[in-house]
Amino acid sequence: MVEVTGVDLEKYEREWMPKVLKARQDVIDSMAKEYMLPEDKMPSPDRLNVLKLPYEAGTMSDKELTITETPAYLLVEKMAKGELTAKETLIAYLKRATIAHQILNCSTGFLIESAMARAEELDKYYAETGKVVGPLHGVPMSVKEHLYIKGEKCNAGFVAWIDRVAPFDNLQVSIMKKAGAIFFVRTNEPQSLMHPDTDNNIWGMCKNGNNLNLSSGGSSGGEGALVGFRGSPLGIGTDIGGSIRFPAAFNGCYGFRPTALRSSLLGCNAAGVGQITVLPAEGPLAQSAEDLELYMKVYSDGEPWRYDSSLAAMPWREAKLPSKLKFGIMWEDGIVAPTPPVKRGLKTVAEKLKAAGHEVVDFEATMAAELWETASKSYFADNGKADIEALAESGEPWLELTKYALGYAEPLSVEEQWRLNGNRDMARQLWLEKMNTEGIDFIICPSYLSVAPPQKKIFYWSYTAMFNVLDMPSSIFPTGLYVDPKIDTWDASYKPRSEQEKVEHSYYSPEVTVEAPITLQLVGRRFMDEDVIAATKIVSSL
Amino acid sequence: MVEVTGVDLEKYEREWMPKVLKARQDVIDSMAKEYMLPEDKMPSPDRLNVLKLPYEAGTMSDKELTITETPAYLLVEKMAKGELTAKETLIAYLKRATIAHQILNCSTGFLIESAMARAEELDKYYAETGKVVGPLHGVPMSVKEHLYIKGEKCNAGFVAWIDRVAPFDNLQVSIMKKAGAIFFVRTNEPQSLMHPDTDNNIWGMCKNGNNLNLSSGGSSGGEGALVGFRGSPLGIGTDIGGSIRFPAAFNGCYGFRPTALRSSLLGCNAAGVGQITVLPAEGPLAQSAEDLELYMKVYSDGEPWRYDSSLAAMPWREAKLPSKLKFGIMWEDGIVAPTPPVKRGLKTVAEKLKAAGHEVVDFEATMAAELWETASKSYFADNGKADIEALAESGEPWLELTKYALGYAEPLSVEEQWRLNGNRDMARQLWLEKMNTEGIDFIICPSYLSVAPPQKKIFYWSYTAMFNVLDMPSSIFPTGLYVDPKIDTWDASYKPRSEQEKVEHSYYSPEVTVEAPITLQLVGRRFMDEDVIAATKIVSSL
Repeated sequence: MVEVTGVDLEKYEREWMPKVLKARQDVIDSMAKEYMLPEDKMPSPDRLNVLKLPYEAGTMSDKELTITETPAYLLVEKMAKGELTAKETLIAYLKRATIAHQILNCSTGFLIESAMARAEELDKYYAETGKVVGPLHGVPMSVKEHLYIKGEKCNAGFVAWIDRVAPFDNLQVSIMKKAGAIFFVRTNEPQSLMHPDTDNNIWGMCKNGNNLNLSSGGSSGGEGALVGFRGSPLGIGTDIGGSIRFPAAFNGCYGFRPTALRSSLLGCNAAGVGQITVLPAEGPLAQSAEDLELYMKVYSDGEPWRYDSSLAAMPWREAKLPSKLKFGIMWEDGIVAPTPPVKRGLKTVAEKLKAAGHEVVDFEATMAAELWETASKSYFADNGKADIEALAESGEPWLELTKYALGYAEPLSVEEQWRLNGNRDMARQLWLEKMNTEGIDFIICPSYLSVAPPQKKIFYWSYTAMFNVLDMPSSIFPTGLYVDPKIDTWDASYKPRSEQEKVEHSYYSPEVTVEAPITLQLVGRRFMDEDVIAATKIVSSL
Repeated sequence: MVEVTGVDLEKYEREWMPKVLKARQDVIDSMAKEYMLPEDKMPSPDRLNVLKLPYEAGTMSDKELTITETPAYLLVEKMAKGELTAKETLIAYLKRATIAHQILNCSTGFLIESAMARAEELDKYYAETGKVVGPLHGVPMSVKEHLYIKGEKCNAGFVAWIDRVAPFDNLQVSIMKKAGAIFFVRTNEPQSLMHPDTDNNIWGMCKNGNNLNLSSGGSSGGEGALVGFRGSPLGIGTDIGGSIRFPAAFNGCYGFRPTALRSSLLGCNAAGVGQITVLPAEGPLAQSAEDLELYMKVYSDGEPWRYDSSLAAMPWREAKLPSKLKFGIMWEDGIVAPTPPVKRGLKTVAEKLKAAGHEVVDFEATMAAELWETASKSYFADNGKADIEALAESGEPWLELTKYALGYAEPLSVEEQWRLNGNRDMARQLWLEKMNTEGIDFIICPSYLSVAPPQKKIFYWSYTAMFNVLDMPSSIFPTGLYVDPKIDTWDASYKPRSEQEKVEHSYYSPEVTVEAPITLQLVGRRFMDEDVIAATKIVSSL
């Protein structure tokens, strides 16, 4: 258990605050004034759901609104037919992303100049050749701040790293660029990257467009908020415990955490180098399951294993699923049961799957407590030293969720770490054997024990982190349902089974979380990423 | 630095020696008397090279001698044509393996009954259908002791584990069985499995048939000695620092260490569960490069990833190499240069490759010292506890090479382990980038700093262990050359560059190591196992 240490407010104010203020000003300066929501169109202070603001702003044409509600794969189709230019697509998204940022604080900087230049280049190429440059021709893309964009600053949520400059493009970014994507905006993330929420001392709290009181999730919260607002068709996040999936889930969009050994993180800034028990993954947030697939296929076709020695050399396969699938519904993890809207989501999807002719059975989580123990103790098995040093360098205050995360830090012995690694490997094997024995193709389970909780009130990582430890590919998909205070109340018989469950459930109330999207998680076998995405498409089409 | 501890000779003699004697008797009892080398054919005590004994024994027919010098893939071809039966093939190998064991002490038990039954079954199947059951139909196979054979005892070189019984077949074993292989003999391994030599308190020292004074290598030394003697066409070993490659190299056969994440170890007995920095791999020893390929293809076609959650789901590809390849010759690791015969081997192969139209350039090892530091400190990062406990349970004496290996043990902090993990990952990336930048297809380098050293005199793991840390697939291939005391002497100008080099080189003398085979190592990119084996076939065909 680590105590708060190294905070030096005097030094922080004197030496670092000027840099922080500069960083904030840089974001403002990066925005185009003409795309901004006019003062008189700002939402009233008591308004919670701001997703329709782009319709009220007066800055976006009908065509632009339509563009920003078109999945990436269709945008490319239209550009290939000459029905859309890269530039008008970019402008539409720039407008919507600008509004998103004004209200949600989701961006750490727009890249208008380079994006516009690239869009014009692509339009010129198309005009001259009648062809697109690649499968992402003209798709505007967003990217989490700590992923390298060559020449841009990159701080991973640490004030002390505020002047670090990325020496090259992140590998996934560079593959997307080659395929024609245009990176136009970078997105917010929490201090240390280790919150399932998004707040830091540089840019502050990122909000959720479905309900401004709620968490945008984290650590890819800027992505979640932006993609959920349809301010970006496709974004890139990272996930070591749920950091792609919390934001996708809370903001009601799609997200995918690939198998770690298929996912390159080459070119990123983060503490914790050398922690290999639970590996991070980098992957997409999107507005459709088809776009998750498009992203993963483009990425894999870039043959990242030729450049990143950490990767299994696995080309993207075409998924071939049987027409009748067997889904295991994991109703809960056995420790903290989900709240009423999540249960409603699970029931609804189970019914739809049955109605579509699939088999649906219950699936019981195995070793959930051991999986969380492995994750929570391994993240900071250096007793949090890497993070603590990065915080102490500037003397910045620790945010509450940093204290919470580092609270799991303890100085493990290697012997203890081996025990956890052994548990990890045993759990991986037991889950595989269980799926094989029961003939389960995919697991559907909560994304989180609840829908988006209030900001800063998110502590329970188990539903996502277990699949990081198991290293099973998992997607988040919206059910199309939203919290309805009239329906999503606790049963009369409800009684928390433990103090932990009581505390976790106390953050949910149907009134506070009104209109929060209900999303679920779909999980498949390790390395079978193609199948997970194919199944996500099936479930999403019901 | 761990001191010898837990030795209790009194307890060991009283409680454990009876079990040890029983285990030794079991091996004798498992042999067929009629296949044994007659007393009067035993080699004279001063004879070093015993490889031709099968020709002198009088127990083997010409056909049987031919069978035992036929690669596995050709054996299957002949059986498919009805030119050979499984039973006569098995008997030929049983005879040769029996002689091997009498002289080399390479076996921990023969499986005659089950093997004979299976051979008869296969012959019956062929007689009835005219077909083989699979691509290994009737191929007799050997397997390292610590790999599970259901119902058989399995002790991993620890006296304390002498009564452990394997609950199921090792996954690779079971795949081979399904393909038609017949497991007929199990093979010797060192105490703790962590020697590059093969000696233990149960069965004792395994010798090298090329020269009885020399090491058979380890830890798959029983396999190396047996396959090198042609007492088995194809065997299975394991390798975490060179344990397939030392034995293949020292006994002059072929060996292959696959990329760890493609190689299942499901079903084996070993200390060190939870050590994940340097992963072990299980793979073949064989009499030809074609048989390495046959093994790996059969194994991969068994889709082991469906059963073993640790594996990347990578089917075996057909290697497609360009006709002109670029080989980097890594003449040394920068720490201990190889001895004269190894240099001669490298020069010879480099010349042959050039003559065959390939490009050959020098290749410099990077981070060799850090790679060995990572390996040596990670193996026993629990301060050797797992091994020490397994030794102390019986009170058995520690062999010298156990003391040496555990001498690397120190209680690492997780922070220190993270630093080593970081070095590992940096080295993997630097090697990949170096190969990419220099356009190198494959590296050819020493298998070991020398040819087979005298027994117990083998301490330097760097040339093999670096590729375990880098996790680059690597094969051992014979050059067809043998130590010649007239040629393989030090240059007049020779001067060791360091005390370490002086000590290591002192174990080599052309007189002592006379007739030792000169073998080399061929290394390729991580996960590109198919290419490494294809290149091994090319190099072997020159």
